[in-house]
Amino acid sequence: MSSLQHVNPTVKGIRESAHSGLQSLAAHVTQEIAQGMQKPFKGVIDISSGDPHKAGMKPISFVRQVLAVCLHPELLENKTLPLDVRLRAQRLLEVCDGGSVGSYTDSSGMPHVRQSIAEFIMRRDVGVHSHAKDVFISAGSQRGLMVILKLLASGEGDTQTGVLTPRPCPHTLPTLLDDAGVALVPYQLMEDRGWAVDLSELHRALKCDRGGCNPRAIYISNPGTPTGHVQDWKSIEEVIRFAAAERLLLLVDEVYQDSVYGQGKEFISFKRVLFEMGKEYSGTVQMVSLHSLSSACMGECGLRAGYMELVNMDPEVMHFVDTMLCTDISSPVTGQIALVLMVNPPRPGDPSYDTYTQEILLIQATLSQNAQRAHEFLNDLPGMSSQPAKGGIYLYPRLHLPSEIIEKAKKLEVEACVLYCQMLLKEEGVFLGAGCQNGETTGNHYLRLCILVPADTLEEVLARLASFHLRLMDTCPYPDRGVKGRDIRDTL
Amino acid sequence: MSSLQHVNPTVKGIRESAHSGLQSLAAHVTQEIAQGMQKPFKGVIDISSGDPHKAGMKPISFVRQVLAVCLHPELLENKTLPLDVRLRAQRLLEVCDGGSVGSYTDSSGMPHVRQSIAEFIMRRDVGVHSHAKDVFISAGSQRGLMVILKLLASGEGDTQTGVLTPRPCPHTLPTLLDDAGVALVPYQLMEDRGWAVDLSELHRALKCDRGGCNPRAIYISNPGTPTGHVQDWKSIEEVIRFAAAERLLLLVDEVYQDSVYGQGKEFISFKRVLFEMGKEYSGTVQMVSLHSLSSACMGECGLRAGYMELVNMDPEVMHFVDTMLCTDISSPVTGQIALVLMVNPPRPGDPSYDTYTQEILLIQATLSQNAQRAHEFLNDLPGMSSQPAKGGIYLYPRLHLPSEIIEKAKKLEVEACVLYCQMLLKEEGVFLGAGCQNGETTGNHYLRLCILVPADTLEEVLARLASFHLRLMDTCPYPDRGVKGRDIRDTL
Repeated sequence: MSSLQHVNPTVKGIRESAHSGLQSLAAHVTQEIAQGMQKPFKGVIDISSGDPHKAGMKPISFVRQVLAVCLHPELLENKTLPLDVRLRAQRLLEVCDGGSVGSYTDSSGMPHVRQSIAEFIMRRDVGVHSHAKDVFISAGSQRGLMVILKLLASGEGDTQTGVLTPRPCPHTLPTLLDDAGVALVPYQLMEDRGWAVDLSELHRALKCDRGGCNPRAIYISNPGTPTGHVQDWKSIEEVIRFAAAERLLLLVDEVYQDSVYGQGKEFISFKRVLFEMGKEYSGTVQMVSLHSLSSACMGECGLRAGYMELVNMDPEVMHFVDTMLCTDISSPVTGQIALVLMVNPPRPGDPSYDTYTQEILLIQATLSQNAQRAHEFLNDLPGMSSQPAKGGIYLYPRLHLPSEIIEKAKKLEVEACVLYCQMLLKEEGVFLGAGCQNGETTGNHYLRLCILVPADTLEEVLARLASFHLRLMDTCPYPDRGVKGRDIRDTL
Repeated sequence: MSSLQHVNPTVKGIRESAHSGLQSLAAHVTQEIAQGMQKPFKGVIDISSGDPHKAGMKPISFVRQVLAVCLHPELLENKTLPLDVRLRAQRLLEVCDGGSVGSYTDSSGMPHVRQSIAEFIMRRDVGVHSHAKDVFISAGSQRGLMVILKLLASGEGDTQTGVLTPRPCPHTLPTLLDDAGVALVPYQLMEDRGWAVDLSELHRALKCDRGGCNPRAIYISNPGTPTGHVQDWKSIEEVIRFAAAERLLLLVDEVYQDSVYGQGKEFISFKRVLFEMGKEYSGTVQMVSLHSLSSACMGECGLRAGYMELVNMDPEVMHFVDTMLCTDISSPVTGQIALVLMVNPPRPGDPSYDTYTQEILLIQATLSQNAQRAHEFLNDLPGMSSQPAKGGIYLYPRLHLPSEIIEKAKKLEVEACVLYCQMLLKEEGVFLGAGCQNGETTGNHYLRLCILVPADTLEEVLARLASFHLRLMDTCPYPDRGVKGRDIRDTL
């Protein structure tokens, strides 16, 4: 440990993400404000990643009330709390060892929680069977994914395990793949088709990289992070056929399944489609589906819980999933309990039902209105174009930057989108995600905005962003769209 | 993933622990009872590992009250909760992003929590400096240890990283080392000296295994798990000198620092000793010290939080610790908050002080009385001998088994202590840990008992254990100590 050269080479190989540099800058700016430095803004607004409560979204009261009672069971006697809250807490405490959330659970999660999740999946998938034994709980969906990636990892060079990964993908994914020692094999999503998955591109990516490594899985994010794309039945079927033909494990990130708002769109799970494709597929295609407590409506990122359902996995391989989760000993019990409440919320007639329903509807309405509002606003800015989001919690607009900025970025040896985000942070105190994927240069530049924020926060962000962006475009006028820029500025 | 041969070879190399087999058996017996099968006992009592709340110990009210308010901030107005509880919760919510425990935190933990821990360490170590930047929070101390092990891991065969590991060691450690891809280099603790660390044995172990692998760290558990040994100043100094001379990283498990009860014994941290040894050592010896919320007095295993303090670590290496914790995104916030309450409890004059103090004293008294009671009881049984525990939450008695049992175990291809535990579970519904280390045969047989349980639970365990044990010894009388066995039985 005495010097860097002795650090595990896999760990040393983990690429630094552009995001962590921007995070440091945001912390620095925040500190300057705390120290009294004058800035043209009050504070940094961070919508670079999905952290709804941080951005001001409210937790679901039912979830928090039940958790409070579970932690401090004397509240079972507190009559100001709804009866169903107290009954639920009592039931949950009964399934905790020793009646305490302070006890360890099975490494794969409490049987009651796994069973509740399996029942939720069956309701969601209109009766397709789900078994508690195939549901594994972990401290966040990313932790579950890491376990699967580590199981897959093997080989070096030509034989190194590869994972087909969308471009763009969730910004935390490349680091995870690096950490697991797995190669990233990129496939491009189709921006002009609202970031759809394209079958011929999957074939191209696979052919192109076979030889460079050994692709054994394909990662799909649906609804798409950060694209906002929502796959339809046909597209899902195509991906499944592809995975079946190429013998790839399907790693399906369905974390934002609770937030599809595009007109005529609905969430369809990969599992449901798989099981309607007949035994040839439903009996053979291996799949891991991920869901999380950090989903849009719950937004309970800090409680750390997620689950994965394994489909068609070898029992012997499942055994190793269990073994690997054992090294965490168990997942946080407060998170596990919140998972049960997520998949099994109050029902009509329950005292908490109306409040719960109103809170969920408010979150969903905020999200869908924000998606619409931000999309239109950004598209009206010169030098910016945004595909509409149909689901999920992000927009991923494209920047058409003046060549001066691109030249400046080259000189500074940063990606142009990173430079843009740095300047925006310093000048307006708005922290957006830089759209560049780790180390990948496509020549295009993007931003990532989380839109699951209170409406007034979004307005503040858009105003600051426009102010900065128009200044930038004015200083370095963009050849094609400069006029539009001035138009917009006049209306602000 | 389609077949076992493709699983990551490191993962496939994780040895199955005897413990997990016994856990399955315990679950099976419990299920039989639930299904109405008649047994000579009401239910399984599990004291095989440290899970105080499961065993019936009570949580600390102050911790649970503050957590309840943090989860459901409307309780800030609840006047039946002590004022200091509400003020503390308010203060903690202020340092959560967005005022919610549902927000992510820095991957290394909330700055406020890290700062509180650094201040606690300075008070504990009588002024030796501690810096928040050197404190890393993780979802349990084992998770932190895993990060360090993964950083250390490299090489194969002769060059594979090795870790000097005590025999006996915490029962979860061998699996962790396997998972990290690190070789276990055993050093024997001295049973006849109360399981003390012996310097010449450290040298022997190192010399013997250098060549087989590349030892780069030494793991020490103090107070000892599962031995109950507490190191004195001189012994700690010796280990530090040894680590310094051999350029080994010190991995110090100080998880039970809050539970030293042996007469004339006190907990002394490795860091305190290190910093009194002069600059030659304090400026160079690299150390990781682990502590946990699952400690004796808190016993909050289910909340999943622990921390490690890094001493003399290269900033570049620290950077990778941060990177690796990033793959977890962040640790559970409820656990982080409970950590602050652990290291910064109510003070004299605070409304919660008296209750808090009484609860802690009760836990400590239970532990120390149980240690004494169990030690004497076990030592009085024929074919059993136990070193006294001076700290920690375990006893680790030795079994002197009749040769018939040892032969039977050989035929069944299990360790004799595992067979003993299986029989005890089936016949009396008591689940003790089997003392054998993974795959290591020393010819001696041990049991592991967690003694942090309510006194009446311990009595029930001892009665059932004695009943089983005496039956066993009577059926297969032990040559040397059979007479003593009959004596005891007469008094029961």
